[in-house]
Amino acid sequence: MNGADALISTLVSGGVEVCFANPGTSEMHFVGALDAVPGLRGVLTLFEGVATGAADGYARIAEKPAAVLLHLGPGLGNGLANLHNARRAGVPVVVIVGDHATYHKKYDTPLESDIDAVAGTVSGWLRRSDRTVEVGLDAAAAIRAAIGPPSQVATLILPANVSWSDGAQPAGMPDAAQTAAQTAEPTAEPTAEAVAATALQSGRDAVLLIGGAATREPWLSAAARIRQATGARLLCETFPTRWERGAGVPQVTRLPYLEKLAAEELKDAKHLILAGARAPVSFFAYPKKPGDLVPAECAVHQLEVSALHALAELVAPDTIAEPESVTPRPKLPPGPLNGAKIAEAISELLPEHAIVVDESNTAGFTLLDATAGAPRHDWLTLTGGAIGYGLPAATGAAIAVPNRRVLCLEADGSAMYTISALWTHARENLNITTVIYNNRSYDILRLELLRVGRSGPPGPKAQELLQLKPPELDFVAIATGMGVPARRAITAEEFSECLSAALREPGPHLIDAVIEPTSPETLAFLAS
Amino acid sequence: MNGADALISTLVSGGVEVCFANPGTSEMHFVGALDAVPGLRGVLTLFEGVATGAADGYARIAEKPAAVLLHLGPGLGNGLANLHNARRAGVPVVVIVGDHATYHKKYDTPLESDIDAVAGTVSGWLRRSDRTVEVGLDAAAAIRAAIGPPSQVATLILPANVSWSDGAQPAGMPDAAQTAAQTAEPTAEPTAEAVAATALQSGRDAVLLIGGAATREPWLSAAARIRQATGARLLCETFPTRWERGAGVPQVTRLPYLEKLAAEELKDAKHLILAGARAPVSFFAYPKKPGDLVPAECAVHQLEVSALHALAELVAPDTIAEPESVTPRPKLPPGPLNGAKIAEAISELLPEHAIVVDESNTAGFTLLDATAGAPRHDWLTLTGGAIGYGLPAATGAAIAVPNRRVLCLEADGSAMYTISALWTHARENLNITTVIYNNRSYDILRLELLRVGRSGPPGPKAQELLQLKPPELDFVAIATGMGVPARRAITAEEFSECLSAALREPGPHLIDAVIEPTSPETLAFLAS
Repeated sequence: MNGADALISTLVSGGVEVCFANPGTSEMHFVGALDAVPGLRGVLTLFEGVATGAADGYARIAEKPAAVLLHLGPGLGNGLANLHNARRAGVPVVVIVGDHATYHKKYDTPLESDIDAVAGTVSGWLRRSDRTVEVGLDAAAAIRAAIGPPSQVATLILPANVSWSDGAQPAGMPDAAQTAAQTAEPTAEPTAEAVAATALQSGRDAVLLIGGAATREPWLSAAARIRQATGARLLCETFPTRWERGAGVPQVTRLPYLEKLAAEELKDAKHLILAGARAPVSFFAYPKKPGDLVPAECAVHQLEVSALHALAELVAPDTIAEPESVTPRPKLPPGPLNGAKIAEAISELLPEHAIVVDESNTAGFTLLDATAGAPRHDWLTLTGGAIGYGLPAATGAAIAVPNRRVLCLEADGSAMYTISALWTHARENLNITTVIYNNRSYDILRLELLRVGRSGPPGPKAQELLQLKPPELDFVAIATGMGVPARRAITAEEFSECLSAALREPGPHLIDAVIEPTSPETLAFLAS
Repeated sequence: MNGADALISTLVSGGVEVCFANPGTSEMHFVGALDAVPGLRGVLTLFEGVATGAADGYARIAEKPAAVLLHLGPGLGNGLANLHNARRAGVPVVVIVGDHATYHKKYDTPLESDIDAVAGTVSGWLRRSDRTVEVGLDAAAAIRAAIGPPSQVATLILPANVSWSDGAQPAGMPDAAQTAAQTAEPTAEPTAEAVAATALQSGRDAVLLIGGAATREPWLSAAARIRQATGARLLCETFPTRWERGAGVPQVTRLPYLEKLAAEELKDAKHLILAGARAPVSFFAYPKKPGDLVPAECAVHQLEVSALHALAELVAPDTIAEPESVTPRPKLPPGPLNGAKIAEAISELLPEHAIVVDESNTAGFTLLDATAGAPRHDWLTLTGGAIGYGLPAATGAAIAVPNRRVLCLEADGSAMYTISALWTHARENLNITTVIYNNRSYDILRLELLRVGRSGPPGPKAQELLQLKPPELDFVAIATGMGVPARRAITAEEFSECLSAALREPGPHLIDAVIEPTSPETLAFLAS
């Protein structure tokens, strides 16, 4: 058996079902082996950033790793930004980077580069498989490392001759159930919970900030019990990997992105209990503004996610999370379209168990409030700040659960980084409805330009670098050119009609939602 | 003066006129400074790989560096593949990567990553500017390092607070003329030329293989004189950075990409003189095939490009390169379109002093032969093998010389890596005509799958990963959606008409040239 066959056999026996691929010559034996070894589905992407983002989205929903197949250093480079996001999401991904044959590297041919150095920046586990006889074991180790705990990006560099040579064997995996159990219930440190319980019961202002797996059940209910019993405020991190929300799910407030609003949320806190979240800091530094958002007088208590149950038993024994009053859903709005009306229409039309992939950035400012009472859904966010994650992540999520609806909310600027994902939406006939917030502007940067405190209004050259026109992007044409049916909406009524129709029909759709850029007044208010 | 203002002042005084930008928050002071300091043109791209590829194309034609502005590690990652190509092209590029404020990095916020490690893989020079007072000097050092010799990618990492703080000063540059003189005429080693001259005059079969700057005048004429006087065969490297060709320019044969054809070219050589080229090796390794293409009995002589003049004086004193017989140009072809007919039409319609950016891959197999007699032009190739360079490189070339016509020849698969470059073509109203070889197939990989010697025909899953349909990409729609006028050609007559019209009209155009994939028989022949 050659290395490629053994690698794929090992992936399959390790529970890896999907490989998002953008292969090249050094990966041709892997590609050939897909037919020799059943059980691994190859999904073609037209750009590596789509493959890596899809693996991120897949892992968030499937709760297990997909494989990604990349071609040499440049392929890894193209996929790096979304691997960065996956690293920040803390999800499992098995990355296979093909390399030149071991004996060929000395020639320093055009595609030769330092794969290890680049891979090391995003990989919690990194290995170069130098011998065919060990490739099965290496693949098994990669899967184990990816699953964790902690879940992470695990990268295996696979030289072409290791792949094509004979003498390999697939390797077995530890029992999946055991691995899952380890993931779900690491041993908690009892002392930390007791300290947190004392803090919560001290009568002083306390905030419970949850992140990681804690933005999902059953941890959300445990957190809600703690809130009920102690009066602590319950927040979640600004960019959750996967957040269960909507009617019937305990409502949690997201820590705001804007540091002045986040500081306002936290200013009275005397105790900050972190469960799966990190101590809040400003996303960027700004002149003369603090980076650390924890108030000076506030004590910080760090817990594992799994400690939430024990903490709930300490402060709220024998309780359950009480049903919360259902947040009213907005009605379908009329008139000229804007970001707020898109949010209202989405809330009204969102089907149950939808997956929302949110890369709406500035234009989606009101989305979370508007959808608090929508039917139960999962909300995925941009964990690593590297834009271009939405369309790819939607791809992976839809492949993970074909029977659920995926709603991909994309800012126009962000969409263009990985726009070819639309082709994979069409090729795989995925149930993804993409909404483009087409305001022809990098509004987030117009805001950030104000926030960094350069005196005076931006000049014409600066403004030009923040505007996506001329020419105006026609996302209907672009999507159609990649095989995705698309329509344009200029009024709220048109948008509701488009969204309603897209969510009824199978397969991918795109709505080019044409809205105005954020007004200078609003930007100035947000930046102040 | 703040760091950003000093940086831009230094760039301008160092002769940098253009900055290809895809900025983020950490670069907002740089963006703001574009208005404060005149002389630097900001060109917005919608994806970092377009910015870096544009800087490569710009440098190849302008013969000086552009700046590239990237946002943190993920932005650098997105631009990495085309920086890899620029590194292999040996062109000067000044890369500015914005980073978090120095004091903010400890918070490990979502966008934090190891920029230095990634940048190190493509940068001949790398520095982190940690103090505002030094940012001018650092920028000057970056420009000098980029210009060289050797020309290279020089990367300056610029923390946000270094950019926004006061206390900076622009730094002066060494005299540009002096730098250029150094680049053009490094001191040559006389002995190497003498040895090469003896080899050429030995009467044994000799090959002069030129690369780097030697694929341009005046070196081409020196090489032609050597050929005339000694009977040596004159070849150029497979992927020249910039190759002057066409009527009136000494004709050179390109060393073939396929290693069996390259080996055939070299098999009788007893002396191989390398001028600016590296010893020929197979692009990839293949099972049971040699990587080193130099015959066992062949002596290799390495020369600097600048030694070609001295060598010509030794073996062909007092001669000039004689005019060569003009290769006949093919006529405009009729009938169903294919790659060969596209090549014929291009040869017939190519305007004088055009710049051809060639990423046509498999479908452009006959281009070089067909265009040998076309009016004098520059030919840019994919130096580093990282596909997705063509549309960006065309962007940079067109900005470097607005009065020349750029013809961008793009394989469909390669085009999709950096397709958003079309938007910049439209935004800057660049004189670029893009031809998409739309064969709905990764033909180069169909060929490579055969070449790697996996037994038997590829199975259905492998084939699926090498086909770009379904759905078929409609490049007319995609280009139109980004503001580039586009037409489809299915017959050779239609193609000639589209190309003729596009080359007459100002501004960008795209031709979606629909052709058949390479036949299995041809692929099998090429792979044999």
